[in-house]
Order: sequence, then structure tokens, then C-alpha cells
Amino acid sequence: MALPTSIKLFEMAPRDGLQNEPGTLVPTTTKIELIERLAKAGLTHIEAASFVSPKWVPQMGDATDVMNGITRQPGVVYSALTPNLKGLEGALAAGVEEVAVFGAASEAFSQKNINCSIAESLKRFEPVLERANEAGVRVRGYVSCVLGCPYEGDISPAKVAEVANALFEMGCYEISLGDTIGVGTPLAAKRMIEATRQQVPIEYLAAHFHDTYGMALANLYAVLEEGVSVIDAATAGLGGCPYAKGASGNVATEDVLYLIEGLGIHTGIDLQAVIDTGYWITNKLGRRPSSKVALAKGAGNQ
Amino acid sequence: MALPTSIKLFEMAPRDGLQNEPGTLVPTTTKIELIERLAKAGLTHIEAASFVSPKWVPQMGDATDVMNGITRQPGVVYSALTPNLKGLEGALAAGVEEVAVFGAASEAFSQKNINCSIAESLKRFEPVLERANEAGVRVRGYVSCVLGCPYEGDISPAKVAEVANALFEMGCYEISLGDTIGVGTPLAAKRMIEATRQQVPIEYLAAHFHDTYGMALANLYAVLEEGVSVIDAATAGLGGCPYAKGASGNVATEDVLYLIEGLGIHTGIDLQAVIDTGYWITNKLGRRPSSKVALAKGAGNQ
Repeated sequence: MALPTSIKLFEMAPRDGLQNEPGTLVPTTTKIELIERLAKAGLTHIEAASFVSPKWVPQMGDATDVMNGITRQPGVVYSALTPNLKGLEGALAAGVEEVAVFGAASEAFSQKNINCSIAESLKRFEPVLERANEAGVRVRGYVSCVLGCPYEGDISPAKVAEVANALFEMGCYEISLGDTIGVGTPLAAKRMIEATRQQVPIEYLAAHFHDTYGMALANLYAVLEEGVSVIDAATAGLGGCPYAKGASGNVATEDVLYLIEGLGIHTGIDLQAVIDTGYWITNKLGRRPSSKVALAKGAGNQ
Repeated sequence: MALPTSIKLFEMAPRDGLQNEPGTLVPTTTKIELIERLAKAGLTHIEAASFVSPKWVPQMGDATDVMNGITRQPGVVYSALTPNLKGLEGALAAGVEEVAVFGAASEAFSQKNINCSIAESLKRFEPVLERANEAGVRVRGYVSCVLGCPYEGDISPAKVAEVANALFEMGCYEISLGDTIGVGTPLAAKRMIEATRQQVPIEYLAAHFHDTYGMALANLYAVLEEGVSVIDAATAGLGGCPYAKGASGNVATEDVLYLIEGLGIHTGIDLQAVIDTGYWITNKLGRRPSSKVALAKGAGNQ
């Protein structure tokens, strides 16, 4: 099949990235600067915060301050995760223009991660979708564990398709399919997309792959061949999932950019600026970027 | 296109790996144990040594002792790099049953790496091939810089095909195509294979990719789709190329195994035994494996 001619990159570092970094809380000013640097580098979709209880996710406790603090660039969408109505109201009050809900394709993972069944989680999202719709705010839907679950093992493509379809039918404008624990390989990724595209048109599907087993770029290439044209990635490969055993970070935005530019798909994003942002934020976190492209090319001006 | 139904893995850690590890010389007994562990894990093709001047490559100065020291397993081929007749004679005296010569697809790299033009290097290989043929020893041909050169930049697929064909015509039984500096991306890798297979049948082509930019597995998946069925890899991602700026190691055997087993291609190699061997050797080198699969799965019994 033909590769897509353009790709939308969805930047995850400020939310899915920082949320899952161990260690001390990142200052609000640092988060704001991170988001502004990413926008300046040319990223046009940035998941900036999560409106969840600080009891569960202390790192995201300053979501309102972050959203209020950023100087917004025209043409850039700053979104936030809102798992429930309370979170959504907080996000709306902070002027968030796009929100997201987070489901799972694994019953066991749903129970362990959000303490309810898949069906119950979908039920909880309904009022969120309704209220967001009223407010004129788009909702993105995440499905986790699409290529495997730390508790259940293999997940059937049919189950992924079913949950993706439920979110799509409910009004989510885009469904991001997450290999939360990074265990997938290319043919499994292809099969998962083939099943899901029967339910949700391919242009509304995003690939959200973690690089725990080093497979993320191979899997991305495989699903690009299937026509997927939206990719989630986190600068410096920040983050992971604290509930999934052995999980390391998201695939690095730098590596995805190198891959897709190498495939002749122009993004307009400044790779070196992303690399420099990755060195800057990981320096604050006391580590190096989890991006081979960043390590190979080195830092410019941070 | 269909993926191959079986894959031959060519293990590089003892030669291409250790040769390019910085730091102190690895003891001969450690090299011997490494090779024996790899064979025990199920690897059937192991590049075990390089018969070159110790002046140029001190790490390989004990090639004869290594080759004489290993307890050979039936069904395992232990090969050695032999850049010239002197090296070949040394290898033959040590009972090596397969040797290799090393050329380049880049004029500038050939000059910097082996101090002669591509044409001159091919000329030098002729007596090696003749003598090896007399001795009944197979010769593998390497072509470096097939997806880019640190001095010349892009390398045309036609040039790769030309050099590969010259080595094949000269009698090399297999041509290993090296992305020495790891800059390739999947479509470039596909195009390089498409050009080269016009000259050399696909079953005689091997992919030898370095993971400097994190692209090795994506590139391997792309060339598997082209029908390539021989892959070079180094346990723990050891090695690189000291003459190539910014080069990091070979793609890790552990990661390649995880990829191809995930594609349903059974190898018979014991992944956990390879992982454990990677932890064991990198522990001796004072570092961790450069394999995400090894890091995700962790060490078992070393």
C-alpha cells in the first residue's frame, strides 16, 4: 500500500511524558516553557495537561496553571486529558480547546488502571462527550493495551476494533491506539489496524506506540503502510505507564521525525529544535534523551 | 510482498562487536566463552575473529588463539574477517571454515578506512578469493556505507549494486550490505535492495544495519518485505565503526530475534540465553546491553 502523503504528529511529552517520569514534581514554569518550546519547534498538536485528581497523579496537579500560563500560538492545538466531568469542567474553565478520554482494550487493565470495566468506563465517558460537545470542544479517544496487556497477555484485534468503534460512535473525533507496554511487532500492529479500520475510517486512527521493546519505529512503519497518518510521540521519549510492568517511554518525537522525513513525508517541524528541547527537558530531569536520533545528532543551542 | 519463511541470523558480537568497543583489550578466554555461549544459545553463524594486523586492530590480535580455543559445535559456522592473503593464511592455519572480505560502496570511505579505492580493494580481494576457493573455504563479502557515508553523504543504490555484483562475480557466496553509520530509513533501504537484487539474487543478500539513529529494526522490516532472509546482528548491540563519526553499535541480536519471532518466523534460537549472554559480556565491559528487549525482559541466569 502507499504511504500517507502527510502526517499529523501529536506531541505527548508534557502530559503522557512528564506524568510518567519518576522523581520530583516538575515546576509549572518548566512545563509551560516545554510546551512553548515544542510549539515554537513546529509541533501543532500538544497534549499539555491532565485534569485528574492530584491524589492519583500529583505531577499533573497544576493543570489549570499550566493551561493558563502558556502563551498560545495560532494554529497550535493544546489539549488535555479529562477522564471525567469534573476534569472536563476544569479544562473548560482553563480554556482548553480539545480534550481526551482514556479507555482500554483489556478488561484486566481497565480494572487495574481506572477501577472499572471497559463498559463502565465507556458509560462514564458519555456525559464527558455530551458536555464537551455542548461546549464546542473536540474529544480524542485513547485505547490502551491494543497490542498486549501486562495482565491478560494478547489482546484480540476484534476487541480493539470494538472499543475504538464505541468511542468513535460516542463522538470522539480521533481514536489513538496505544501499545501501552510496547510488546507489539509489525504484523500484529498491521492486523490490529486492519480490524479497527473496518469500524473506524483509517483517517481517524492514530498510532500511539511505546518503545519498551525497541519495536515502535518498525511498528509505525508497518501501520504507515496501512495508511495511518496520525502518530503520537513524546520528545526525548519521555514517559511510559506506571501501571504497566517494565514499561519505558513513548516513542521519541525526534526518531519519528527522522523516520517520516526519511520516507519523504515533510512535516515542517524543526528537528534540531525538537532535539534541543529534548536535551533541555531531560537535563532538568537529570537524564539524557531516550532518542537515538538526539544522541547521534547531539544538542545544538538549548 | 511476502515475508521470508525462514531467516538466517549472522552473529557479529565477537568480531564486529568487540572490535569496535572502546576500552581495554578483552581477554582471549572471555572471547572464547562468548562464542561458545552464543553457539549454545542456538546461533549457527558466528563471526568469531578478524585476521588483521594487531597494529591496526589490537582487539583482534589474538584471532589464532580464539579460533584454536573454541570448542566447536556441529552445525555452527565460525567465520573470520580476512582482508588480505596474509590474514587468510592465518585463518586457514587456524582451521577457519568461512572467511570474509570487507569493501565499501563509498570511494571516500574506502580511502579513509582501508587506504585504497574501491577498485583497488576489489583487486586485492581476488587472490584471497582464489586461495580460499583452493582451500575449499567459503567467502562472504561485506559492502559498507550502503545507505550513506560519513564523508560523501548519500550513496546511490546503483553503486551498491555494482560493488555487490563485483564481489558476487568474484565468488563471494553471500553479500552483506552494511548501513555502517545507521543513517538509512525504510524506503531508502528498500530502494537499495531493489537495485542490488537486479545484480545479485535476493537469497544471497544480507542486511547488516547499525542502530545509530534507531532505524535498524524499521529498515530490517522493510527489507524483509523485499525478501531479504539473512540478517547480521550483534548480541547486546556491541560494536560500531571507529572510523565513522557518531556510529553506535550493530542492531542487537535480542531485538532482531524479538522482531522476527513476532513476525511468526521461528529461529530455534533461545532468546533468553542470548539476553543472558548480552548481560554477561556487557558486565565484563562495564556497561549495560544496548538492547531494549534485554532491558525490558531483564537478565535470567548469567
